[in-house]
Amino acid sequence: MHIAILGTRAVGPALGRAFGAAGHHVTIGTRDPEQTRLRPEWADSPLNLAAYADLRADVFINATSGAGALPALQAVGSALDGKVVIDTSNALDYSQGFPPTLFVSNTDSLAEQLQAALPQTRLVKMFNTMANEVMTNPGGLSQESTIFVAGNDDAARQTAAGLAADLGWTDVFDLGDLTAARGLGRC
Amino acid sequence: MHIAILGTRAVGPALGRAFGAAGHHVTIGTRDPEQTRLRPEWADSPLNLAAYADLRADVFINATSGAGALPALQAVGSALDGKVVIDTSNALDYSQGFPPTLFVSNTDSLAEQLQAALPQTRLVKMFNTMANEVMTNPGGLSQESTIFVAGNDDAARQTAAGLAADLGWTDVFDLGDLTAARGLGRC
Repeated sequence: MHIAILGTRAVGPALGRAFGAAGHHVTIGTRDPEQTRLRPEWADSPLNLAAYADLRADVFINATSGAGALPALQAVGSALDGKVVIDTSNALDYSQGFPPTLFVSNTDSLAEQLQAALPQTRLVKMFNTMANEVMTNPGGLSQESTIFVAGNDDAARQTAAGLAADLGWTDVFDLGDLTAARGLGRC
Repeated sequence: MHIAILGTRAVGPALGRAFGAAGHHVTIGTRDPEQTRLRPEWADSPLNLAAYADLRADVFINATSGAGALPALQAVGSALDGKVVIDTSNALDYSQGFPPTLFVSNTDSLAEQLQAALPQTRLVKMFNTMANEVMTNPGGLSQESTIFVAGNDDAARQTAAGLAADLGWTDVFDLGDLTAARGLGRC
């Protein structure tokens, strides 16, 4: 599958390497690929970079910060229409320092806000409940664990679940529609 | 230990039976014990009832609804001063139907509100993350699980942890002060 990941820090490249190792074609989107290549950790990375996102992808994965999610997806624009968009971000507000609070919670979620802002996408919430070392290597845990998936589109959730399985997840728990994102890592 | 439980439905009697079986002296507090005894499930219950709460208890456990927690504790009043008060409730708001939302969340918690309203108590948040069948019988789970404890008073958390151990909990995780209650079942 052709996977476009948005975000060049931590989660993005970690998922990129893992999906690449699983046989998928992966590109990492960044506003300015040339600038990104100048960063030390990117200088020798074998990962492909694309401006914003490779628009031909089958599946898009947002791996930006929570606050960066909507601008990053809006920058890709109509290429997302009809596509599965997996959001891995958390609605963390660090404006008052650490620990962060949530900029959306309880009666709403970032995932629902993204879906409302981009109604033609098939948004799925997944991966946001764990560190990227866990996302990409569930077998490294001392016992079998569970990954959760939420989204309004049944087929999109199944696609996301299949991608989790490609990374080694054996217990993928389908939470149903996006309102479940309110409880997933609380955003 | 002498334990006073506040609340006559579900969690209260379940904890009462379990702590009684573990050798503790338990009373269940209710506004009107005579009225409570008229309820079918209470007619033949061996549990002791007290008006509001047995004021001589060493430890008080609130097992009311989240909305009922502060009124129930305030009705007991100064007898709680200096005592360990374990709050098991959740800040659930059913006013808009099911599923409930939270009436406090994110930057505050019900436990912190209770502690602020009753500053002389030593408030601990515990048991609220699970159904009462799990609280009272952790050995019934298919694998070892974890119970969390939060509170501002070190000795109070240790007392609560000991009571969890009396019910069979082998992995009691100390989360530190009450701000952790924001994440415990989200209230």
